[in-house]
Amino acid sequence: MQVSPRGGSGRAKTVPPGSSGSPKQASVGWTRRPLKVPSNLLILYSLRVFFSPMLFQIDHFGFAEDRTFKQRYLIADQHWKKDTGSILFYTGNEGDIAWFANNTGFMWNVAEEFDAILVFAEHRYYGDSLPFGNKSYTDAKHLNYLSSQQALADFAVLIQHLKNTIPGTENTPVIAIGGSYGGMLAAWFRMKYPHIVIGALAASAPIWQFDSLVPCGSFYKIVTEDFKKSGAGCSETIQNSWAAIKQKGLQWLSHTFRLCSPLKTKTDVINFREWLRGTWIYVAMVDYPYEAAFLQPLPAWPVKAICKYLKNPKLPDRLLLQNIFQAVNIYYNYTGHASCLNLTQTTTKSLGLRGWSYQACTEMVMPMCSDGINDMFEPQKWDFHAYSEECFKAWGVRPRPSWIPTFYGGKNISAHSNIIFSNGGLDPWSGGGVTKNITDTLVAIMIPEGAHHLDLRSNSPFDPTSVLQARLLEVHYMKLWLQKHERVKTCPK
Amino acid sequence: MQVSPRGGSGRAKTVPPGSSGSPKQASVGWTRRPLKVPSNLLILYSLRVFFSPMLFQIDHFGFAEDRTFKQRYLIADQHWKKDTGSILFYTGNEGDIAWFANNTGFMWNVAEEFDAILVFAEHRYYGDSLPFGNKSYTDAKHLNYLSSQQALADFAVLIQHLKNTIPGTENTPVIAIGGSYGGMLAAWFRMKYPHIVIGALAASAPIWQFDSLVPCGSFYKIVTEDFKKSGAGCSETIQNSWAAIKQKGLQWLSHTFRLCSPLKTKTDVINFREWLRGTWIYVAMVDYPYEAAFLQPLPAWPVKAICKYLKNPKLPDRLLLQNIFQAVNIYYNYTGHASCLNLTQTTTKSLGLRGWSYQACTEMVMPMCSDGINDMFEPQKWDFHAYSEECFKAWGVRPRPSWIPTFYGGKNISAHSNIIFSNGGLDPWSGGGVTKNITDTLVAIMIPEGAHHLDLRSNSPFDPTSVLQARLLEVHYMKLWLQKHERVKTCPK
Repeated sequence: MQVSPRGGSGRAKTVPPGSSGSPKQASVGWTRRPLKVPSNLLILYSLRVFFSPMLFQIDHFGFAEDRTFKQRYLIADQHWKKDTGSILFYTGNEGDIAWFANNTGFMWNVAEEFDAILVFAEHRYYGDSLPFGNKSYTDAKHLNYLSSQQALADFAVLIQHLKNTIPGTENTPVIAIGGSYGGMLAAWFRMKYPHIVIGALAASAPIWQFDSLVPCGSFYKIVTEDFKKSGAGCSETIQNSWAAIKQKGLQWLSHTFRLCSPLKTKTDVINFREWLRGTWIYVAMVDYPYEAAFLQPLPAWPVKAICKYLKNPKLPDRLLLQNIFQAVNIYYNYTGHASCLNLTQTTTKSLGLRGWSYQACTEMVMPMCSDGINDMFEPQKWDFHAYSEECFKAWGVRPRPSWIPTFYGGKNISAHSNIIFSNGGLDPWSGGGVTKNITDTLVAIMIPEGAHHLDLRSNSPFDPTSVLQARLLEVHYMKLWLQKHERVKTCPK
Repeated sequence: MQVSPRGGSGRAKTVPPGSSGSPKQASVGWTRRPLKVPSNLLILYSLRVFFSPMLFQIDHFGFAEDRTFKQRYLIADQHWKKDTGSILFYTGNEGDIAWFANNTGFMWNVAEEFDAILVFAEHRYYGDSLPFGNKSYTDAKHLNYLSSQQALADFAVLIQHLKNTIPGTENTPVIAIGGSYGGMLAAWFRMKYPHIVIGALAASAPIWQFDSLVPCGSFYKIVTEDFKKSGAGCSETIQNSWAAIKQKGLQWLSHTFRLCSPLKTKTDVINFREWLRGTWIYVAMVDYPYEAAFLQPLPAWPVKAICKYLKNPKLPDRLLLQNIFQAVNIYYNYTGHASCLNLTQTTTKSLGLRGWSYQACTEMVMPMCSDGINDMFEPQKWDFHAYSEECFKAWGVRPRPSWIPTFYGGKNISAHSNIIFSNGGLDPWSGGGVTKNITDTLVAIMIPEGAHHLDLRSNSPFDPTSVLQARLLEVHYMKLWLQKHERVKTCPK
């Protein structure tokens, strides 16, 4: 149970030089020792890949489109015990399911304790689960069935299919587990299909990052706090960088930031600044206590690593931006493999950015804003109108910002039960998460030293105590649900 | 509170001769005194008719179709009190909402007690709530948005709209109420949107009449029992009629049953027998203790009235069938207005039979069968394949028989709360209903002398004690929900 399918412990020795200690600017950049990417752990764990039979309706909610598609899912059943077992079901989010399986070590770590079958279900329109094959992203018509509701219905049908086909699982209780959007899906799955899952662990699930349920500024504020905490002068340096960029020419910026495509137009500079903004967000999200490769291969505590370059906010523009480059370079080129930086590839290719862009333009409208006072970013108001126009240009659809709260309940979810909402204090998404208990069975777990769903990652010797405690609590609650389920099953009223 | 917007009490004096006592065959039929149809009670109750603004998405679950439509709803607010009030929300079913408002006297009767606003919301594709106007029924493409899920989403959006626009209702608790399919919708509304309704009264809601959740024969068995209980020889006479029909010629049958269109083909005879089958079902459904005009204008205890003609199952075919005609004639021509009987019009025109046919061919697949042993009908197996073929021919769609249980939980609904399932012992639909408590807050109320949602009808001096008790219990539970809601609201954890 101590072997980690993913995570830092096994690879702590491969930490490249320069990732700790005070780096010298000149030595950083293009010559890092490559980080070993672990072999495919799916095989280690005899994780088997399946495609469902054609029983997944492309449209669960309408009948004119009656075609079906194959959904991919992964199963690991070596710890499964019929009489005492459970099914731990990962509600796949916006990406390749194998990548999520490899980054959800928690499930592997507890599989034996729960005598569990692990199932990782791929979300439609991502990875290999494409309703219309390579036409799936052609236009709004083909994308029409990409939604959280359709995905949840897929999960429901898949679980019924598994129970009908894996001998002995008919009455096996199922617990949904997910992180980020997958965590929202896990929580919503329990809310909408409590007959199918007895409970849900929703890690870093910002179910309230919608409409005006939380202030739109909380996200950037938390990112900023992370940088503030990780080094003196760090957030101020970033804050000052925005003005500095305006003082420098396109050529100089392109050269200094070693951009693969030089900046040529005003729009390019806007994109460049958006790319920087995104970079700080992503680093904050994956500010894990050990070397890892979730969104990108990164050193332990990457925000700290970055902040080592950003100690002096008062440097002249040129030097300040050179430092910003070194910082950014940690995120994009920790392996030392990159010969230039690419503005269009900000995270692992396992994430389905196109699909998420469509979802963000339909249901997943998460208002965000920065004011440059409570955060280190350029002021940017939440402009729904502009957002809607962009969506219409990009996808031919209009976002519906209040649909998610209408459908899933917004803040009024106390009628539901058996959901753990875990959140990391370092995670910008925690601002939209459930961070206080709602009822005895809708519980919140805070992990002050945790970034984005750290608790779902494999155990590591570098884990802060708070995440170890969180995992213990999560296991505790999950066992409570199973016990209660057992009691209800054997002692009906 | 004693005035009935509908129902028998006010019109008991108008019971026409011949409807009680032993009728003579010759005097029955075409000369009844017309039954007074009450004036439009909507006006009496200052029920106001509204059309929603265009905020109802035609497709709540997809984004390619972004058009909206106007939903009709009715409001009566003369008993509304801001601080203590509630909203009683009728989840409209397959028909004109005014007709349901006129046949749900219970809500009018309790409005004052609950300081309530009454809202009757029309189901999309029925009455005046047509998403594509008169093109709504053109083809499978236009019908694609006719489903229970879309209807529930309409209700959710409507309630939010009402709370946003009626001053003082922002925090007013809402209780869903419905009968039959409307009862299913009320129960499902609470299950899927517990953040919007604090509870639901689901009257005569056969939420388990799906897949193999209940035996397919229960429905016809209950119809048969009603006729058995209502007169010696009655069910046997009907049972014997099927063979008798086979012995008689088309012309004789057409003449004897005064059919508007004479039977000409074998298919016509099949339709004729289906029409008879349907007649017995409908009479059983509306076997109310007083004269009423729900599906058709009928005398008190219409099954008894019918059984008075069906005392002798051993009569020769000719006489037996002439009695069957007299019996049928009670149902189709109690007013004495009909000059002939029409095989295609079996119930009030307020019911949207086309829409329901489409729904039955998509989601609402309710398996039924008869064996001629436990029931008085010709044996008829549940033949899903044939059913599916018919649906495809009629609407170009295929039914999905397991979708409703998958989506709404089948028998595994104990995670939900605050739903009253009431059922009448005389109602054939009770076979698919919840007739035993599931938990302390999912309660069943049986009304042994009740037909189809008798409890939702107005109080009447002819009501059996069991329905009076049922209504008291219903009010009791609804008040409990309101009290609990109040406590939760004022004393948060």
